[in-house]
Amino acid sequence: MVNIAVMGYGTVGSGVVEVINTNSDIINQRAGDEINVKYVLDIRDFPDDPIQEKIVHDVNVIINDPEIRIVVEVMGGIEPAYTFVKQCLEAGKSVVTSNKALVAKHGAELLSIAKERELNFLFEASVGGGIPIIRALNSSLTADKIEEITGILNGTTNYMLSKMFYEGADYAEVLKEAQDNGYAERNPEADVEGYDACRKIAILSSLISGQQVDFEDIYTEGITKITKEDMLYAKELGMTIKLLASSKRHGNHLHAIVAPALLGKEHPLYNINDVFNAVFVHGNVLGDAMFYGSGAGKLPTASAVVADVVDEVKHLHRNIMTMWKNEKLTLLPIEDTCKRFFVRMNGDADKRRDEVEALFGNVRFLNVEGLSDEFGFVTEVMTEGEYGKKAEKAEGILHMIRIEG
Amino acid sequence: MVNIAVMGYGTVGSGVVEVINTNSDIINQRAGDEINVKYVLDIRDFPDDPIQEKIVHDVNVIINDPEIRIVVEVMGGIEPAYTFVKQCLEAGKSVVTSNKALVAKHGAELLSIAKERELNFLFEASVGGGIPIIRALNSSLTADKIEEITGILNGTTNYMLSKMFYEGADYAEVLKEAQDNGYAERNPEADVEGYDACRKIAILSSLISGQQVDFEDIYTEGITKITKEDMLYAKELGMTIKLLASSKRHGNHLHAIVAPALLGKEHPLYNINDVFNAVFVHGNVLGDAMFYGSGAGKLPTASAVVADVVDEVKHLHRNIMTMWKNEKLTLLPIEDTCKRFFVRMNGDADKRRDEVEALFGNVRFLNVEGLSDEFGFVTEVMTEGEYGKKAEKAEGILHMIRIEG
Repeated sequence: MVNIAVMGYGTVGSGVVEVINTNSDIINQRAGDEINVKYVLDIRDFPDDPIQEKIVHDVNVIINDPEIRIVVEVMGGIEPAYTFVKQCLEAGKSVVTSNKALVAKHGAELLSIAKERELNFLFEASVGGGIPIIRALNSSLTADKIEEITGILNGTTNYMLSKMFYEGADYAEVLKEAQDNGYAERNPEADVEGYDACRKIAILSSLISGQQVDFEDIYTEGITKITKEDMLYAKELGMTIKLLASSKRHGNHLHAIVAPALLGKEHPLYNINDVFNAVFVHGNVLGDAMFYGSGAGKLPTASAVVADVVDEVKHLHRNIMTMWKNEKLTLLPIEDTCKRFFVRMNGDADKRRDEVEALFGNVRFLNVEGLSDEFGFVTEVMTEGEYGKKAEKAEGILHMIRIEG
Repeated sequence: MVNIAVMGYGTVGSGVVEVINTNSDIINQRAGDEINVKYVLDIRDFPDDPIQEKIVHDVNVIINDPEIRIVVEVMGGIEPAYTFVKQCLEAGKSVVTSNKALVAKHGAELLSIAKERELNFLFEASVGGGIPIIRALNSSLTADKIEEITGILNGTTNYMLSKMFYEGADYAEVLKEAQDNGYAERNPEADVEGYDACRKIAILSSLISGQQVDFEDIYTEGITKITKEDMLYAKELGMTIKLLASSKRHGNHLHAIVAPALLGKEHPLYNINDVFNAVFVHGNVLGDAMFYGSGAGKLPTASAVVADVVDEVKHLHRNIMTMWKNEKLTLLPIEDTCKRFFVRMNGDADKRRDEVEALFGNVRFLNVEGLSDEFGFVTEVMTEGEYGKKAEKAEGILHMIRIEG
């Protein structure tokens, strides 16, 4: 029997207990041992829940119990999660977490403590919920130099953008709807400003580079400025708009960005709708691959946590995670990255054609039926720096959206 | 240094050597050791290729060399691959293969020999080329009861059906084109009759059930009878036609089938086009997930083979593969499985309406512009057995295609 402790009995924590109970026979068979939840740490009591008999309020009960081999951290947030996880590792327990904030900030250090002690720090559920992208990078795509990883990593914003695209709804309307049906929080900032996706792509970038990528260094733009008018232009272009979190190699550099992007029908991420997440990967020998699934939700996330527990039971005292060093990676400045830009501008395309072409060069003009006194255009490929300089000189730019690929 | 031998220097074998050479730095770093190709077994010589110095013609050189820890089998076919692989395992060497015929037929036995000797028999590349579905089932989706696995597992037929759907081409035309550009073989039987997909779904079915699923037991229907007229009806239904290889749980039973199926736009496999493959998985706690990538091709397949080699280097003398027992699984007879059926029939829908409804019950009639003297209809859900009995009594059925979902 392998005894484990679960820290945090919120949505994911109760999901972990539920999954272990529901699928105990197959889980134990695959782990090759019986997994037993001995403690659940929470500040609350749950008098009406059978879990109450396992509830402890003091983390030291877990840390000081030599029977506990694996600790599942699903409290979220940096503290006290960081302190608790570090103490558990130092006490010789492997840790499994779903906590993206913790992994993005302290992943390198916690991985290194785990490695020193022949333990594991596993975090499949921290990125993409039920999508097994971390283990794929760690043990399946190991023959490849990963040249690109681009994901739809936030279900809330993907739900909102899908509604705006397919139903012509506007931003405020879909945000309210998402809040009403529980897809978005009352304070939706972490989702709609891209902060959640940013932490996830920071983790993936660290994994593919083997170095620390600080999320604060990643240019991050949310979806709050996306309008239903933008979606009309997207349709005119045969494209859609998605919040993409992306990390790409340029020579020896990595460029990471979170921003809404126009995406063509031929891109595998084009059809990822509603709350689903997906991660597109390009390897230098593998070519294109994509992983798709539920990016969040109690049971899909718990499924990923429990799969990590099973993997850890199979590898007790044998370090299996790819390391990323604490050494910080300097990202390619956004100004030096190249792409095409879609721009919406005030006025009449026919009257402003010469002016736009003089500034932006050869562009493709767009008009959308029903939108008067404005027009759009798509630039050729240029750096963000070049675009910025041109845009500064232009008058009446309403909005700019980057074009992917 | 870990010495390996590659058996077979064809497309995949030369790809394996190329991938190991191209990405040696990152591969060795991830493996934690240097991987060295010591021998390549082939009946041919390659005087103009630097590989010639490693070429051996006698498998015993490999079997008898204690320095060889891992053998890569990429010859294809059952014999002599089976004999060689068994001898290698018995001589204490782990084996990595891309050979679906070998795995489908002898997987259970070879896994069990490997387990007895604390070795591994790994076969990621045998299903879905570069798509890491085997490792996902083995180590990522371990918290779930897998209730369904449905794949587009053959790139040739998917290329052909995509062309037929999007370009209105007919079967003979696209087959010729696929042969001309190398996507289909001169003798295309293994692809177009569904035999290739059948072996792959047999492997996946064995893995999710833990028992031997014989490919001969799987009802298999190819795409040779799919016409451009069928595609017109599919469009009328807002669907497409794909060759699906599927394994689903019904209670305690598993039902496996390979057949063309009508698929709606909301299905994640709807948009998988051209030579790409994809595997859709439904787990009881994970929900829906999908894995997408290159199903074949020299480098994507080699990428999967080399990733298995890396995994094996990290796990020398530690068995990591989920077993499937030699014990044969009895599949649910196709007659007992339920679905809706699309039927094309001779004559005039208005004149035959009463007759069709008397036989098939409540159906949805379809007419396609330009197709005269025939019509289509979609039945309600019924068993294959029921459908068969009704169809026997009906006159003038031109074609039947199953509807997925």
